[in-house]
Amino acid sequence: MFALVAFALRFTSVVIFLAFSLVALPHANAQTDPLPSWNEGAAKKSITDFVARVTTQGGTDFVPVPERIATFDNDGTLWTEQPFYFQLAFAFDRVKATAPRHPEWKTTQPFKALLDNDMKGLAAAGEKGLLQIVAVTHAGMTTEEFARTVLDWTSTARHPRFHRPYTELVYQPMLELLTYLRANGFKTFVVSGGGVEFMRPWMEKVYGIPPEQVVGSSGVVKFQIGASGKPELMKLPKIEFVDDGSGKPVGINRFIGRRPIFAFGNSDGDLQMLQWTAAGEGARFAGLVHHTDAEREYAYDRSSKFGKLDKAWDEAVKRGWLVVDMKQDWKTVFPFEK
Amino acid sequence: MFALVAFALRFTSVVIFLAFSLVALPHANAQTDPLPSWNEGAAKKSITDFVARVTTQGGTDFVPVPERIATFDNDGTLWTEQPFYFQLAFAFDRVKATAPRHPEWKTTQPFKALLDNDMKGLAAAGEKGLLQIVAVTHAGMTTEEFARTVLDWTSTARHPRFHRPYTELVYQPMLELLTYLRANGFKTFVVSGGGVEFMRPWMEKVYGIPPEQVVGSSGVVKFQIGASGKPELMKLPKIEFVDDGSGKPVGINRFIGRRPIFAFGNSDGDLQMLQWTAAGEGARFAGLVHHTDAEREYAYDRSSKFGKLDKAWDEAVKRGWLVVDMKQDWKTVFPFEK
Repeated sequence: MFALVAFALRFTSVVIFLAFSLVALPHANAQTDPLPSWNEGAAKKSITDFVARVTTQGGTDFVPVPERIATFDNDGTLWTEQPFYFQLAFAFDRVKATAPRHPEWKTTQPFKALLDNDMKGLAAAGEKGLLQIVAVTHAGMTTEEFARTVLDWTSTARHPRFHRPYTELVYQPMLELLTYLRANGFKTFVVSGGGVEFMRPWMEKVYGIPPEQVVGSSGVVKFQIGASGKPELMKLPKIEFVDDGSGKPVGINRFIGRRPIFAFGNSDGDLQMLQWTAAGEGARFAGLVHHTDAEREYAYDRSSKFGKLDKAWDEAVKRGWLVVDMKQDWKTVFPFEK
Repeated sequence: MFALVAFALRFTSVVIFLAFSLVALPHANAQTDPLPSWNEGAAKKSITDFVARVTTQGGTDFVPVPERIATFDNDGTLWTEQPFYFQLAFAFDRVKATAPRHPEWKTTQPFKALLDNDMKGLAAAGEKGLLQIVAVTHAGMTTEEFARTVLDWTSTARHPRFHRPYTELVYQPMLELLTYLRANGFKTFVVSGGGVEFMRPWMEKVYGIPPEQVVGSSGVVKFQIGASGKPELMKLPKIEFVDDGSGKPVGINRFIGRRPIFAFGNSDGDLQMLQWTAAGEGARFAGLVHHTDAEREYAYDRSSKFGKLDKAWDEAVKRGWLVVDMKQDWKTVFPFEK
């Protein structure tokens, strides 16, 4: 009998310990700062206050889990976009890598300028030249071949200033924000002007965002039975959808089918996404990353060629949206600083 | 001391009971038939065998949870598509409901024929006439107004034969299959030729599939600042994407960005989705619903106007895909039979 009681007591204490651990866990989490790379201040507080409001059961601003949709721009919001969009760096590298198969590029612009590292000549080719480069580097192969090419590039290419893989130039505070939102029942989406097939191969690993939650620009894709008799999806050199500016709320409607309650961007290309998000009923959050830190990252806004922040900034001030001051609000910028 | 021991013992027994319940739960589930509306036989067994193979950790066919993507056609696969696609019934009802605002329809085809219940005249207008009817009933309003119109219709309209809301004419065995797959870590998607804005408003409630997992045909949508000063998305009378036939694998690539491992359809419009799914590496499942039950539902295949099953049937036989014989394999067809 004594043995039985002793066993019962021992078992009980283990169970009580376990039960207590389980009960205590949420409290322990609540006490651990979910956003350690954000300095204390109004920016951080506006985020945690919003999340508390929409997740408090019975509160006037409570939002059911399925409606907790959060959308994030990518270039300049989740990763760096200087000295130019990383997808352009990818396209440039692809031209160089495949030049031996294209002897005609030695004498044809804009390829000649790019291969000669003639940046003036490249600039002279303008947007049309860039689109030509994107077209030839993003088409003429299957979607699966393209995905492999992207993954090869993310593992080998290095950023000219930071000398690191481009996928390491992601913002630690934003990674924490994504994790924090998901821990609070949000479904996180990327809504970017970048190419959807360029982003999907690496975003699950880097951001924890699966392919089906990545919205982006796209080219026309054609279903066909390939030479091997197997069906394949061939990428054609034709733009189908530009997920930028007014295209962002359109893309959100098309791909997600629900209006976000939380959105983050950093440039005028995000203005309409933020307007669309903020104009919904109930509690809404709209935020912008303002690049103010030339030392740790870059400083640019109204007159930048990539990631221009002008109209969206004015609208943010007018509407009371959060404008994050990177230099002041972020304790850490990149994960590798830690 | 006695009280303490007694308390410990009581507490222990409660905890043991709870612990046992938790441990026992998966076994209890495994013993409960997850597909009670499927008759025992090869069809049911091929489904449960496949799910066992891809979910057995350490097995050669194991598939990690994020890659367990399952796609389902809608018309004729999840709900009835006779005497014609339900979205057409919606469009016809909308023409009738809004006719007072369009006196010109009294003398213009195909509207005149529809308003006069002149089915011969309507048939004479052909596909062009139907597209005209779809265009006027699916555009000229915001996405949110359209969603409300769809929900009004699903709650008031009745099927001509079954005299029930169209959303009750869903297949009980397929509802069970959706639930069973989700319980086994699958993410379930609809991939339908139907309009995405027509499907999303009711599918979460009826199928447990949220808007962001519904892929379909779409019209052009325009972002604008409305009369009230609020941003809105206006539906334009222009087709943007037809998610049928070869469009299905294209739509899957665009919206999901991963190849499914499991797909179900019922007609030639699903052939390429099934080919694309089946051609992937590793274990794959492709299935077709064959409508063989004129008594409980409808019987049709090679020569049907809606949901023609001809080439896909031949391919299924050739490739060894599952062909469900509705009459033989389904114990129950509709939820209301139970």
